[in-house]
Amino acid sequence: MIFNKIAILGAGLLGASFALAAKRNALCASISVWSRSESTLNKCLARSDIFSEVAETPSDAVKDADFVLICTPTETIPLIAKEISTSLKVGAIVSDVGSVKGKICTISSEVISASGAHFVGSHPMAGSEKVGIDFAEADLFEGCSCFITPISENDKLYVEKLSSLWKALRMRVYVLSPELHDAIVARVSHLPHIVASTICDTASDFELNILPYSGPGFRDTTRVSSGSPVIWESIVADNRAEILKALKDYSVRLNKIISAIETDDKDAIAKFFNKAKSFRDRL
Amino acid sequence: MIFNKIAILGAGLLGASFALAAKRNALCASISVWSRSESTLNKCLARSDIFSEVAETPSDAVKDADFVLICTPTETIPLIAKEISTSLKVGAIVSDVGSVKGKICTISSEVISASGAHFVGSHPMAGSEKVGIDFAEADLFEGCSCFITPISENDKLYVEKLSSLWKALRMRVYVLSPELHDAIVARVSHLPHIVASTICDTASDFELNILPYSGPGFRDTTRVSSGSPVIWESIVADNRAEILKALKDYSVRLNKIISAIETDDKDAIAKFFNKAKSFRDRL
Repeated sequence: MIFNKIAILGAGLLGASFALAAKRNALCASISVWSRSESTLNKCLARSDIFSEVAETPSDAVKDADFVLICTPTETIPLIAKEISTSLKVGAIVSDVGSVKGKICTISSEVISASGAHFVGSHPMAGSEKVGIDFAEADLFEGCSCFITPISENDKLYVEKLSSLWKALRMRVYVLSPELHDAIVARVSHLPHIVASTICDTASDFELNILPYSGPGFRDTTRVSSGSPVIWESIVADNRAEILKALKDYSVRLNKIISAIETDDKDAIAKFFNKAKSFRDRL
Repeated sequence: MIFNKIAILGAGLLGASFALAAKRNALCASISVWSRSESTLNKCLARSDIFSEVAETPSDAVKDADFVLICTPTETIPLIAKEISTSLKVGAIVSDVGSVKGKICTISSEVISASGAHFVGSHPMAGSEKVGIDFAEADLFEGCSCFITPISENDKLYVEKLSSLWKALRMRVYVLSPELHDAIVARVSHLPHIVASTICDTASDFELNILPYSGPGFRDTTRVSSGSPVIWESIVADNRAEILKALKDYSVRLNKIISAIETDDKDAIAKFFNKAKSFRDRL
């Protein structure tokens, strides 16, 4: 057991899956939960085997909790951090699952450290294009990567505790600054998402419905574009600078290969496919 | 049994898988095979349960065959068609598995009809980033789409025969002109491949190795870029015009979303993600 009481704020796919995983791995004695959605709250109430307490407000949920995990959409995380800051137990550790870290970590650390608790951001790279508690799974995190993004050298102790928590769910843990994290995810997650959505955009404007003709390549390449638009709108808003940098790096390379194809530059085309393959083969 | 003797020219992933599938589904009494690669020929010799004849030349392989399937790289298909044309049985049906159809169908139909046999192109959308006989599977084609691309109204009878062949392997069959086929695959297959490779190109140029930080989204979106560069170089050469059209349609849409992100045009960003999701959700 790593903590006595864990509070989960937001019981969507990630929050609810974390609850199931925490229970299965006996990470804590009890779990309290809060959700903004009434139907989700009712589903939590029906799972008293998992949730010992279903709270009406975030502040109620975090009372006496040793660990708080904020699992709401990214733009609300700093707001929730502020809202709970006066109700936290002194010494409590607060983290989140937001997929962009810069802004979240700066604001949340400030408001939470003022209360005698400690904030260190996390970003478990788990989940799928599915959303909501109905798709929650105890093994959602297994084998996936998790970032921990401290903003100060003084966070070492909390980083270690968070690290053992995510490792207990069999995640690969990486400790990075929020800034480097945001640059990396812009390239491994946000860029591929926008690109996949642009493929769908292009395909959907063709003169006839081409979906029946698509194969496994199209299916895999575009899978992520079924993700929740609301979540992606907020990711784009939160990580705009790094996403734009990645998109421009990408755009330069795209224009290069377009002109290589136009001019039938066989060497450049061969180099392009070989470089991509040798990079991808390392996965 | 649909044919007495089938000849397979080229025993890579598709050719060898077709042989296994033809055997399992009892499509013919005997299968002859030819491959340019000596090591592949030896592997075929070792499978006398599948191949009743391993020929030294394409012309030897097609003797007395009622059906010939050319499974070599796209740029060599018209050459092979020409090479075998004088050895074909009168009335034989010849097809291929090339992923671009315009040029192949025009040239091959001409040379083969001169010999009293009949060419109608096929494009089974099966396979993966793996290549070679070692990965062959009898169920490779099951549940996948297959295009048949006749160039004349007079091909109806051969289209029906080809159609029953691919349907016997449990494929969904679509009959289209070679031109429309090439426009469609440029959008459902070639564009996604180039885009996925450009993501790899961009990611591999980042200041540190970001592969350890990638999740399932990156893995799926870029999977196809592990495909054989040689095959893709020839696809690009064969379908240049349609690929460039698709890349330009894509590029226009990419620049639009980049400027929407730059100017924080929330409406345009929301529309973009919603349109992509609703299209992809129809798959």
